[in-house]
Amino acid sequence: MVISKPDIKVIGFDADDTLWMNEEHYRETEDSFVAMMEPWLTERETRKHLFAVEMENLGLYGYGAKGFTLSMISAANSISNGQASSSLISEIIELGKTLIDAPMDLLPGVSDVLETLHGDYRMIVATKGDLLDQERKLKKSNLEDYFHHVEIMSDKNPESYRKLVRHLDIKPEEFLMIGNSLKSDVVPVLDIGADAIHIPAQSTWAHEHVDDTSRIQPYLTLDGFGDLIEVFYKQSS
Amino acid sequence: MVISKPDIKVIGFDADDTLWMNEEHYRETEDSFVAMMEPWLTERETRKHLFAVEMENLGLYGYGAKGFTLSMISAANSISNGQASSSLISEIIELGKTLIDAPMDLLPGVSDVLETLHGDYRMIVATKGDLLDQERKLKKSNLEDYFHHVEIMSDKNPESYRKLVRHLDIKPEEFLMIGNSLKSDVVPVLDIGADAIHIPAQSTWAHEHVDDTSRIQPYLTLDGFGDLIEVFYKQSS
Repeated sequence: MVISKPDIKVIGFDADDTLWMNEEHYRETEDSFVAMMEPWLTERETRKHLFAVEMENLGLYGYGAKGFTLSMISAANSISNGQASSSLISEIIELGKTLIDAPMDLLPGVSDVLETLHGDYRMIVATKGDLLDQERKLKKSNLEDYFHHVEIMSDKNPESYRKLVRHLDIKPEEFLMIGNSLKSDVVPVLDIGADAIHIPAQSTWAHEHVDDTSRIQPYLTLDGFGDLIEVFYKQSS
Repeated sequence: MVISKPDIKVIGFDADDTLWMNEEHYRETEDSFVAMMEPWLTERETRKHLFAVEMENLGLYGYGAKGFTLSMISAANSISNGQASSSLISEIIELGKTLIDAPMDLLPGVSDVLETLHGDYRMIVATKGDLLDQERKLKKSNLEDYFHHVEIMSDKNPESYRKLVRHLDIKPEEFLMIGNSLKSDVVPVLDIGADAIHIPAQSTWAHEHVDDTSRIQPYLTLDGFGDLIEVFYKQSS
């Protein structure tokens, strides 16, 4: 096998819904929350209200399960018009704790691909969210040894990718990002002159949707993580 | 002036209560919480209970204002025996938001010292807590340009400092840490063969106390940040 991407020095992997399942755990948590709000509001309206509260809090709380828990508590108070009981609030806190400590489900192909790549490339995890949460997941995943380190980004915009590349002491064209979110893992990376590969997940958080994809530079989309091997290696004759 | 520490390549600065005031904002928040719990519990008992809840949650929530807010909500529910009203919970959430967005008060001497050092040393911020919170504070502080980057550590133990030094591509003896906590900024740093300087803060969180200081290797303690200049430079003749 011959390396197909010899210029790439560092590969950044998004974590949630790229290496392991995540959004599904959030959806399950949200489903439980919706059920709790049934006395006061329809499912549809509860989801809409919760999303609005999350967006309102995003600047202050950032990403991750703790901010999501606080948003659920705020939403419960407003949805119930102050009628949410103390035990209901405790249940929401427990939901949040279960979410933080959710089981680790690696996505298909992840272990094999990382095992193959890690001798030839320096690999990092580049993720939004909470450092403690992501380190906990990485430990549970048994993938820790494949990665040089975990890079937590408060946001994934061109400026933060520029910072990341500077911090790695490489040129943008020596960096490749792999992830499930067009908005976070692909568009801003292409913007700074680095490369990106899109591996869509089964479900994507509404906040991560890109409305207009027509103006994005060309990028590679794969059906699954396992397809990465073909991208990185070609058969030598 | 001649550089007194020519072997040091990177200086790590703790952030909260080393560069800027922090613990005081937490104490103010806790004081407000204590006042809210007055119908149910004495000040002393409320503080004790809240601290116990914080310690119980530390493994799951880690450090920072969001985890602290969730711990206050849990504590309010148990202290009030489920009588805490929805509006009281909302007040606690507001307390937490005020804490996240607390005013920036730089500690005396910080700007001048960083301005003097930054041409001669590579400097980083090495802190526990939440990345988004710390980046927000750094932006508010106007100290951003002095630092190569912010390093968020999920815990400050010898293993995480070893990781940090490896990540910086330097030897332990080329790293110097400066901070207000013996437990987090001094003891584990000396443990890995790096250097540390202690600048005690006015008040320190109970969790950061070191009970037995008799077995710690020698380290330098300074009265204030301004005294760092003398440590790093001596008059040339």
